[in-house]
Amino acid sequence: MNAPDKLATLLSLTREPFPASRKSYLQGSRSDLRVPMREVTLTNGETVSLYDTSGPYTEPGVAIDVRRGLPSVRTPWLDERADTEVYAGRLHQALDDGAKHEDREAERIEQLRLDAAALQRPPRRARAGANVTQMHYARRGIVTPEMEYVALRENGKREWMREYLGDAPREQRLRGNPMGAQIPAIVTPEFVRDEVARGRAIIPANINHPEVEPMAIGRNFLVKINANIGNSAVTSSIEEEVEKLVWAIRWGADNVMDLSTGRNIHTTRDWILRNSPVPIGTVPIYQALEKVGGVAEDLTWAIFRDTLIEQAEQGVDYFTIHAGVRLPFIHLTADRRTGIVSRGGSIMAKWCISHHRESFIYEHFEDICDIMKAYDVSFSLGDGLRPGSAADANDEAQFAELRTLGELTQVAWKHDVQTMIEGPGHVPMHMIQANMDEQLKHCHEAPFYTLGPLTIDIAPGYDHIASAIGAAMIGWFGTAMLCYVTPKEHLGLPDREDVKQGIVAYKIAAHAADVAKGHPGARARDDALSKARFEFRWMDQFNLSLDPDTARDFHDETLPKDASKVA
Amino acid sequence: MNAPDKLATLLSLTREPFPASRKSYLQGSRSDLRVPMREVTLTNGETVSLYDTSGPYTEPGVAIDVRRGLPSVRTPWLDERADTEVYAGRLHQALDDGAKHEDREAERIEQLRLDAAALQRPPRRARAGANVTQMHYARRGIVTPEMEYVALRENGKREWMREYLGDAPREQRLRGNPMGAQIPAIVTPEFVRDEVARGRAIIPANINHPEVEPMAIGRNFLVKINANIGNSAVTSSIEEEVEKLVWAIRWGADNVMDLSTGRNIHTTRDWILRNSPVPIGTVPIYQALEKVGGVAEDLTWAIFRDTLIEQAEQGVDYFTIHAGVRLPFIHLTADRRTGIVSRGGSIMAKWCISHHRESFIYEHFEDICDIMKAYDVSFSLGDGLRPGSAADANDEAQFAELRTLGELTQVAWKHDVQTMIEGPGHVPMHMIQANMDEQLKHCHEAPFYTLGPLTIDIAPGYDHIASAIGAAMIGWFGTAMLCYVTPKEHLGLPDREDVKQGIVAYKIAAHAADVAKGHPGARARDDALSKARFEFRWMDQFNLSLDPDTARDFHDETLPKDASKVA
Repeated sequence: MNAPDKLATLLSLTREPFPASRKSYLQGSRSDLRVPMREVTLTNGETVSLYDTSGPYTEPGVAIDVRRGLPSVRTPWLDERADTEVYAGRLHQALDDGAKHEDREAERIEQLRLDAAALQRPPRRARAGANVTQMHYARRGIVTPEMEYVALRENGKREWMREYLGDAPREQRLRGNPMGAQIPAIVTPEFVRDEVARGRAIIPANINHPEVEPMAIGRNFLVKINANIGNSAVTSSIEEEVEKLVWAIRWGADNVMDLSTGRNIHTTRDWILRNSPVPIGTVPIYQALEKVGGVAEDLTWAIFRDTLIEQAEQGVDYFTIHAGVRLPFIHLTADRRTGIVSRGGSIMAKWCISHHRESFIYEHFEDICDIMKAYDVSFSLGDGLRPGSAADANDEAQFAELRTLGELTQVAWKHDVQTMIEGPGHVPMHMIQANMDEQLKHCHEAPFYTLGPLTIDIAPGYDHIASAIGAAMIGWFGTAMLCYVTPKEHLGLPDREDVKQGIVAYKIAAHAADVAKGHPGARARDDALSKARFEFRWMDQFNLSLDPDTARDFHDETLPKDASKVA
Repeated sequence: MNAPDKLATLLSLTREPFPASRKSYLQGSRSDLRVPMREVTLTNGETVSLYDTSGPYTEPGVAIDVRRGLPSVRTPWLDERADTEVYAGRLHQALDDGAKHEDREAERIEQLRLDAAALQRPPRRARAGANVTQMHYARRGIVTPEMEYVALRENGKREWMREYLGDAPREQRLRGNPMGAQIPAIVTPEFVRDEVARGRAIIPANINHPEVEPMAIGRNFLVKINANIGNSAVTSSIEEEVEKLVWAIRWGADNVMDLSTGRNIHTTRDWILRNSPVPIGTVPIYQALEKVGGVAEDLTWAIFRDTLIEQAEQGVDYFTIHAGVRLPFIHLTADRRTGIVSRGGSIMAKWCISHHRESFIYEHFEDICDIMKAYDVSFSLGDGLRPGSAADANDEAQFAELRTLGELTQVAWKHDVQTMIEGPGHVPMHMIQANMDEQLKHCHEAPFYTLGPLTIDIAPGYDHIASAIGAAMIGWFGTAMLCYVTPKEHLGLPDREDVKQGIVAYKIAAHAADVAKGHPGARARDDALSKARFEFRWMDQFNLSLDPDTARDFHDETLPKDASKVA
């Protein structure tokens, strides 16, 4: 019982509610549809409610047992749809947790598996002939509880915002520039349905991840952020990764990708999924590569397919699939300053070149769609040829792949599979707009999901800042989700503090984008904080900020008389 | 001798050259014109040279005695122009170091004055009828050594850059978008002269600051950054402020503003100026206010004028003058969310309202020009009505003041006084371009010098990031100098680490702007670092980065096999 106890200790640090905050819920049309918000009570008696990604962890009344996992909010909704079946699932294989364990390690994994026995559930899949994606329902005109949940969540409580946004001439002066986005004043469930039906938004929600609190990724919704975690062969433990997940959503991660590459991959993912209220993404090729001992050439469609099913049964909400790394594109990277830097891209390029064959992922794309729609796993079409330096930005390799991702989007949509498109990477400021324009042009408004982009290359140790600049801009231009970059990017694996620094930098970028786009209500929090600042309500200023702890710590009680000099 | 010893200890920490770096010099047309660069030797035998703001401090051979100050590189140039005279200078007054010292404090100041006796020099001023501004020379067709110095400095050593920027199709793909700037391939001394003559650039270089290594602020040059330091009544000491100056220029501050408001103002400034190789700016109204015991209503033109002369004699290179805070504009701030947040703006607004009179600064503007041109102090026309929150961005109060600053620019130029314009502050991304457009329209291309802008208000503790986003964008659009914001903004006074964090964030913003504008050569450093990264030359990657220490510290020697996964 060693492992869970360690985890319990770690978790206790991150379960405390934010200061002056309590969880409240927006009640939906059915009793089991309750959307969590964080309600901050100000010293002047006002209450401000904020979008809340932290799940049940910040609800003191909820007893959390990481060995049993979170409550399954979506199970009744899935049951009612009556289009899924519970089945035995794929047989567990020793290889699922990586090859060649030392004995001591094998013992430890066995213990972790035992500890997590209650996390094992028989999986669900679509009944024969059924398609259980949110897109499929949306296109048939069905408003799912997930869609209603998203609508309530996106609006938040508008009541308190009115006080701050009620000055018509001011609002006219500050009105956003949506850059082509069409954000309604109030998001209705029907609007969500329509956006999902058009493919302009996705709701990543695998039927085997009933713990997820639904959220949407799309240009006409709040800009979201993703945090990457993941153990590796060398450094981290399952306990640390689960705690990092809870830590990440505490600070505002809307999605988390588990990029584990080391041992215990399968078991780590069980722990993470069962304890995650946010969608979890993975890069299945990483695990497939582990199964063939790290030799890219030995990858096969059979192994990859089996890995997709394995992960779909566990509940992964979206897969990064590097289907656009095609054989004819690889030579386009020959003259690059930094070649191919995407790990998935490198693996597939190596496979294609060594076999001199078209990518098996590209060739089996429709077979993959069949898996995706049986579990409602969303595509995150990976940009395996993204630039690894400003010098390689917007080159033909990158854009050839992007156009392919656009073609594949239409294939996925033919199967009603939810799809988003990954984007770079390293792009100087003046070349960012072209990335958005090309994506919109070729990918039919499927949500764009970019890593940064980093605007310069000379800031290792500060790449969360160099990339937050690019992220804010591309978020404004229409990117739906921003994948964070931590200060350790290019240098090492992020620790707990790096994860927080990366998330806060990206919350800044995402919020700056929401304000610039003119998302209704986005500015209200800024106004409430500014008013508190102007009235010297220090505690309110701290409590409304992205990181109340740091704001309070930084506040110098010995502020001199020039305290009024502010930016 | 207590104080200087403490300082010597502090300084020894910041004098170490950067790793693998040595100071080199570009030789100008005269033997005493040597422009410092930092030369980084790479492990592959290449040498990369970088713009260097750190002054003699990073030259191990130079003996530095902060009680004697830096070498006066410009003295021969000033002598040769033969248009200045050395004179006795204004008599020192007890009030110059602030009112009402306690006895113990008075003793300490006396000691600091004695320690700094060698820092006292009789001041220079223009001979009767002469005008000693760089703009005046420029307009008469004279290329000064200062202008040649700037030209060499802006170009750097182009030789090593060619290797990185020699691929024509790549350079065509990456070519910048100058947004109206007209940056030549090579900066000639004549180009600098022309830019200064037009008022499109300034070279802040008071004739009483001969220690300064000349630099230019203008839209057609590299984007510069300013760091604020300054003691206050409560917290910091002279020693700490001098060390903070050396620390700030080590990390790349092109200019430093001394915003001291506490005791020892005059003496602190002596210490800072005599030891600063970068231009020093001040806000003279802060000291004037100290002289009237902090009561804004008691300010007079006589006290303000005397303070300007006092600081001009000491060698301050530019003055923030809030001449645009006019009586008729003050009511425009009545409905703001956050009123007037500029300290200088508040002081002048209080004065105007309590006397119900037009600002004495506005009314005596031409008298101020007469002082500026006798010492070559540049105007930094302050934006006393800048927005203190996004809610107040781009309002009529802000733009009315900006238009006034444009009128005053033409008055200053009538006197050949160098002038730049200060800008906000708090501006959401979609409203930044309008700030640049209005400034260009109304201020006749005088350099713009902005604080941030902060793109959102909810990030106290991280405002260096929230503002680096805005700073990078407005730098790209044409702002010539970016005033940094530290993580402590709105919360407290920045310490040494905050100063560094603010500077690095702003070096990122300025460099991102240079790359986006297409400054010739700006990209070469990114390319050199990217190449080092791709070739796993880790030490070169660290040494080419903005902060080699942090990059190296962050590098994890235990990087797992997925180390190749980079952004």
